[in-house]
Amino acid sequence: MAASFQTLPGFRDFDPRACQMRNYLFETWRRVATRYGFVEYETPLLEATELYLKKSGGELSSQLFRFRDQGDRDVTLRPEVTASLARLAAAKQRDYPKPLKWFEIGQCFRYEKPQKGRTREFYQFNTDILGDPSPATDAELIALAIDTMRELGFTSEDFKVRLSDRNAWAKFAEQHELDEEQLALLLQIVDKIERDAPEVTEGKLEPLGLKREQLTDFISDPSNESDALREIQANLKARNLSKYLEVDLSIVRGLAYYTGVVFEIFDKKQSLRAVAGGGRYDTLVSTLTNGKTDLPAMGFAMGDVVIGLFIEECAGAIRKFESWRQRNASCDFYVVIDEEEKRPEALALIQELREGGLRIDYALTKTKFDKQLKTAATTLAPYALVIGPNFPELTLRNLSARAQEPIHPNTDLVSFLKTKLSNPQGPLLA
Amino acid sequence: MAASFQTLPGFRDFDPRACQMRNYLFETWRRVATRYGFVEYETPLLEATELYLKKSGGELSSQLFRFRDQGDRDVTLRPEVTASLARLAAAKQRDYPKPLKWFEIGQCFRYEKPQKGRTREFYQFNTDILGDPSPATDAELIALAIDTMRELGFTSEDFKVRLSDRNAWAKFAEQHELDEEQLALLLQIVDKIERDAPEVTEGKLEPLGLKREQLTDFISDPSNESDALREIQANLKARNLSKYLEVDLSIVRGLAYYTGVVFEIFDKKQSLRAVAGGGRYDTLVSTLTNGKTDLPAMGFAMGDVVIGLFIEECAGAIRKFESWRQRNASCDFYVVIDEEEKRPEALALIQELREGGLRIDYALTKTKFDKQLKTAATTLAPYALVIGPNFPELTLRNLSARAQEPIHPNTDLVSFLKTKLSNPQGPLLA
Repeated sequence: MAASFQTLPGFRDFDPRACQMRNYLFETWRRVATRYGFVEYETPLLEATELYLKKSGGELSSQLFRFRDQGDRDVTLRPEVTASLARLAAAKQRDYPKPLKWFEIGQCFRYEKPQKGRTREFYQFNTDILGDPSPATDAELIALAIDTMRELGFTSEDFKVRLSDRNAWAKFAEQHELDEEQLALLLQIVDKIERDAPEVTEGKLEPLGLKREQLTDFISDPSNESDALREIQANLKARNLSKYLEVDLSIVRGLAYYTGVVFEIFDKKQSLRAVAGGGRYDTLVSTLTNGKTDLPAMGFAMGDVVIGLFIEECAGAIRKFESWRQRNASCDFYVVIDEEEKRPEALALIQELREGGLRIDYALTKTKFDKQLKTAATTLAPYALVIGPNFPELTLRNLSARAQEPIHPNTDLVSFLKTKLSNPQGPLLA
Repeated sequence: MAASFQTLPGFRDFDPRACQMRNYLFETWRRVATRYGFVEYETPLLEATELYLKKSGGELSSQLFRFRDQGDRDVTLRPEVTASLARLAAAKQRDYPKPLKWFEIGQCFRYEKPQKGRTREFYQFNTDILGDPSPATDAELIALAIDTMRELGFTSEDFKVRLSDRNAWAKFAEQHELDEEQLALLLQIVDKIERDAPEVTEGKLEPLGLKREQLTDFISDPSNESDALREIQANLKARNLSKYLEVDLSIVRGLAYYTGVVFEIFDKKQSLRAVAGGGRYDTLVSTLTNGKTDLPAMGFAMGDVVIGLFIEECAGAIRKFESWRQRNASCDFYVVIDEEEKRPEALALIQELREGGLRIDYALTKTKFDKQLKTAATTLAPYALVIGPNFPELTLRNLSARAQEPIHPNTDLVSFLKTKLSNPQGPLLA
């Protein structure tokens, strides 16, 4: 096949099997967010480039899918959603009670080197609370992040939330008489302290007149926890979620716009990048609206690629996905037409069952009995419904147990078949 | 606000209220497709431009969001999904039983003049059956299209399927000794015959040596129906779906790659463009794979923009959407904290209820009782759950009836509250 007939590097085709994992994530994200009272929004995939240059700069702006459209506009495939959200929330905030609890599931695009855990497009689960500056908001959002992980089948053995507050470092900067620019530099150094060799950190700290030990001492001293961090911990303790939480001041997050509490979720083995992260951005909406709208905010995001790898590494999470997959098999009943003359009656029956909400498949054209049963098995349907010469009597065949029973013509078929499905089987059912 | 701080022309922000309609369409599309045994796939939003030039040409290729990426590749935001589907199906067909019954819901991009019913991005519901050339396949897909409309609340009073077959015109061409090129020209003329003034059609037909009346006579003569059309009608009759169907040979669809049966769905007032359309493309996969894979196929697509307008015009469809919206209100129970000291207990309770699958909202920080009730009403929650000084006794308050009752501390709360929700309320429940 020609090279042009491939996906672009870093872009993914989702065949039906791959799409199941995507849909499982979407459904789980949506279910947990909805339980927390969040409502869904969406913003365009293509935006004016200025929206991103204004906001973040730095690394992100070198990774843009940026071009001029047919109207000569400078446009960009969104690398993230927060800037668009800030616009939308500023425009619509008066129509909703505050705080806004909003979530989004959609694709983002970054021109990075494709590698394990890194693609050029990815789906992101974005959750934000806008309009409330309190640590109670931070706690609500962190609880949502934790419950998202639990709903995916992860336990406190598998992951932890590393919680921090940039304001603690602001205090450190005050104590060491660093100005704002020096604080920004300090945060960048702290952000890399785990990955950098000690001597690299020492070198970076020289211009600030600081030693690495001062940082590690600061990080390990619980008395440096901010009031916000204490309040968040108490709040999560009340929810019985403490065991997932670990205060760790070495977490500061890369993006410049974070203003206070930040957190990241890691697998406990730390073999992967952070699987989710977020923080407070109390000034972003104000900056983007030139001061017209002031909306303190807290958000977090989780991408589908890293969490997908994490699920594959964790037996409990795989089990949960597999059980979802079984429930979402492509078919409830496979109708086997064993008497071709009865096809019109079969079509009427199929129509009736589908209208009753059942998921029905069948051979579109004349097919041998055995072949029909074989195809039925590949759909993972638990049952076949056989239409034979005795129609309107039917035969219900359990495809795994290979047992079968006749169904009397006077049966209320839809109800009867629904009770046969031992578990709720709606494709969109939790 | 600066112009740069708007969406691009023809692109939409979906605030939570607008997003409900989008999600309603997605959920309905997915539910009906799944009932028909279709499985979901997805392909990239960005593709090599060649994929589209190879396939369609013409109008579509003038409407592309096309650019060079950072790796100097000629890339395009997909204007449609069928070309990508053909690639994916060709690559993966061996992993699935045939015919493939696949659907997709995703965004497409076309640089058109924004106007009513036309945006530069739109969501499309794509359904295709690949690997079976029979009219039974066509019928299955048309039945799915009809049931999608019915599931959205439209009746035979509101819409009709106009069914046709390009092969009927091939026969006409044979009778009038037209070559292939002339047949292509003829199809273009037929495609516009409804909208063009008679004299315009006459003018266009001149080079072919034909009169308009020959076309209209041909269209109105039932004996010109192809065997495929007769078989499809019999099949849909067996499903009791005849009343939605109308054979109309003036339908030929614009795209060059259709090879046989084609159809479009129209509102009966015909005040809108076609709300959906599709047809057979038996040679496309073979063309795109340079003959390596032969997969006869039939597909149809429905966009969110036109169907959204159609829903707004149709009382029955609006009612159905509104009832869905009510069921998908953002909250099942709003927890009112009437005794601030009990907040930690409230948080534990909220956590328990959410873990039980209920959708719970509450005021994140200390808020006056009346204000809490007012916010509860805006969430459309049917009930408030009041935590007062008598905790662990709770009060359940019906927010519309304004009645209330105490809940005894020993109650199995999650079960009790679930039975209180008279309708199934899961956010993802049909």
